[in-house]
Amino acid sequence: MEISHIEHIGIAVKNLEESIKYYESILGLKCYAVEEVADQKVKTAFFKVGDTKIELLQSTDAEGPIGKFIEKKGEGIHHLAFAVKDVVGSLKEVEDKGIKLIDKAPRKGAEGLNIAFLHPKSTNGILIEFCSEK
Amino acid sequence: MEISHIEHIGIAVKNLEESIKYYESILGLKCYAVEEVADQKVKTAFFKVGDTKIELLQSTDAEGPIGKFIEKKGEGIHHLAFAVKDVVGSLKEVEDKGIKLIDKAPRKGAEGLNIAFLHPKSTNGILIEFCSEK
Repeated sequence: MEISHIEHIGIAVKNLEESIKYYESILGLKCYAVEEVADQKVKTAFFKVGDTKIELLQSTDAEGPIGKFIEKKGEGIHHLAFAVKDVVGSLKEVEDKGIKLIDKAPRKGAEGLNIAFLHPKSTNGILIEFCSEK
Repeated sequence: MEISHIEHIGIAVKNLEESIKYYESILGLKCYAVEEVADQKVKTAFFKVGDTKIELLQSTDAEGPIGKFIEKKGEGIHHLAFAVKDVVGSLKEVEDKGIKLIDKAPRKGAEGLNIAFLHPKSTNGILIEFCSEK
């Protein structure tokens, strides 16, 4: 497995519109896309910072993963996504090394990427995502 | 203020040696430096991923900021550091917009960078750092 860069940092927020304003007006970043990912029960907003994106995530359902995260931990960084060439091969590689997976096979994420999550219990408490272009 | 890229992602860990092993053996990243920052009461380890670094932080003192963070929240992502050209000017700019600062003036961080933290109460619960080359 070769990680080329951090594809994005996922940040759980309560209010997407307010958070977009913060990143734009305070930090001077520019939101270039807002997208709903029904599968993940989230509405997302993207900012590009160097070769990494910031992905703000607002839950569309209190029972979804971001809704539960905010209820438990409050707003904050939710996951770290590494860009890999081959999600399937990378999942197999880390599973062979004893890492527990959330997704045994990639599924479709925001921006049409192939994505899969590792289980945070295996990864120092950090929710790690692998993703690759279609 | 112009943010060029995410300089690093700070991750609080309990055991630096074990965490280095995880990032090296599971994710295939390479630790290129270990440094103690006495001022912050931490020992740090750095990995480069694209134009962003991962900075693992192990507390050297239970009363230090990382010691307290781990006691309260457990291991996980601690802060997000944005690369700016001018830390002093950037601090003034966000303070003028109502953001509360932890550091009113930059101090010396790991790798000799000039660093300053914004207060997470003003920034959606995320601890944000500005940093620049000497």
